[in-house]
Amino acid sequence: MKIKPLIMIANDDGYRAQGFYKLIKLMRNFGEVIAVSTEKPMSGQSHSITNHEPLRVYLADEAEDYKLYVCTGRPVDCVKIAYRFTDGRVPDLMVSGINHGSNASVNVIYSGTMGAAIEACMDGIPAIGFSLLDYSSKADFSHVDKYINVLTKKVLEKGLPEGVCLNVNIPKISEEPIKGIRLCRQAKGRWDQYFERRVDPFGRDYYWLTGEFIEEETAEDTDIYALKNNYVSVVPIMYDMSSYETIDTLKKWEF
Amino acid sequence: MKIKPLIMIANDDGYRAQGFYKLIKLMRNFGEVIAVSTEKPMSGQSHSITNHEPLRVYLADEAEDYKLYVCTGRPVDCVKIAYRFTDGRVPDLMVSGINHGSNASVNVIYSGTMGAAIEACMDGIPAIGFSLLDYSSKADFSHVDKYINVLTKKVLEKGLPEGVCLNVNIPKISEEPIKGIRLCRQAKGRWDQYFERRVDPFGRDYYWLTGEFIEEETAEDTDIYALKNNYVSVVPIMYDMSSYETIDTLKKWEF
Repeated sequence: MKIKPLIMIANDDGYRAQGFYKLIKLMRNFGEVIAVSTEKPMSGQSHSITNHEPLRVYLADEAEDYKLYVCTGRPVDCVKIAYRFTDGRVPDLMVSGINHGSNASVNVIYSGTMGAAIEACMDGIPAIGFSLLDYSSKADFSHVDKYINVLTKKVLEKGLPEGVCLNVNIPKISEEPIKGIRLCRQAKGRWDQYFERRVDPFGRDYYWLTGEFIEEETAEDTDIYALKNNYVSVVPIMYDMSSYETIDTLKKWEF
Repeated sequence: MKIKPLIMIANDDGYRAQGFYKLIKLMRNFGEVIAVSTEKPMSGQSHSITNHEPLRVYLADEAEDYKLYVCTGRPVDCVKIAYRFTDGRVPDLMVSGINHGSNASVNVIYSGTMGAAIEACMDGIPAIGFSLLDYSSKADFSHVDKYINVLTKKVLEKGLPEGVCLNVNIPKISEEPIKGIRLCRQAKGRWDQYFERRVDPFGRDYYWLTGEFIEEETAEDTDIYALKNNYVSVVPIMYDMSSYETIDTLKKWEF
């Protein structure tokens, strides 16, 4: 009997998120599933880990081919702790999401969904982070199956190059059909952010993060361009952040 | 009268950390300083931000050329909020640290010190993260001045390429003198981590993160090699995580 692939799932929107359940449902068609969710929504957790306090983990749901654990830590903690529950098997694939909201452009840096995928990638597991361009907790995921299935199938078949995982963003549902899948690079962009000052009932200042995303380019080979034109964007992401070009430039400096 | 450079400082070890005060002291020789510290030690915060709760910020110390604020958020929040206190001036340089502990190899991914530097870099400010290979809160910083001064002077003079900041690691003090500064790439490595299960006084399980760092290579052009051989390592880090090579490979897949 052929052993079914083992698929690890993590997310950053909490165990009640629709996108997470959608991903579990789709992955159960491909193999056995170990899913570990954050306890609550945790956007913007990036690659952070919990080391100054302990975590709690509990089994929240199970079937013959599937287990769901909930963990009080961050998305990356969910990946690290998931290995406890694989009976020593190395997952054949790790998927993260489906995030409610875009992780295109520099959002990949802040994203807990992508933090989790990058963590699995650092452990040598082919990993994909999926996001939908709809922040609503009631987002419509009815159009995503086809794209998630085709990408999952390909990565299970072919793997991914060492040190690389995929950042997949899917346009929000609309009347216009999705045109296909596009390989892209991460668009330049930045958050024009600031902290809004407010005053609490005791007269003391407090600050809330706010701001807007600034697109700094719209070149055709970027994820932002693909998404605007109703394509699913796929950006291969690597965790070697070295700028090889700059190493050569700075070697000319005299220290 | 020539206006002195404005230097922004952040850290992730809390406002009582020796490394942070060392950096403030050194930077005050170069210009005006706006320093924003986390309230408590916050290692492993990566590029995480605080968006689900408000922050508090207070002025903790000041002089004519210097202000120190303490912020209840993460290191990246410290950078984002620091702009409130620069009177509209764009900092000429941002420095982060001096972190107590290594941020070499893949530790750059987990590091709040580097998260803060990368955030400033995303805002177009030349940025350097400094770390000392000594985790002790009583670490000896007496040998670092020369290297921090020379790198700071160079970056103030020449700037850095767009989208690139520096990850600087300094060997722990020893009898052997430091041999100099080396431009490097980020070494391959990974954390062999797991969560240790313990039982609380009420009989319930809880989990603590533990593990050890695995060096996966010792090539001469890596930061790990430089540090082992008593050089200060300088890795230019870029936040464009796109793997251009993989884009071309995956374009051959048929979707």
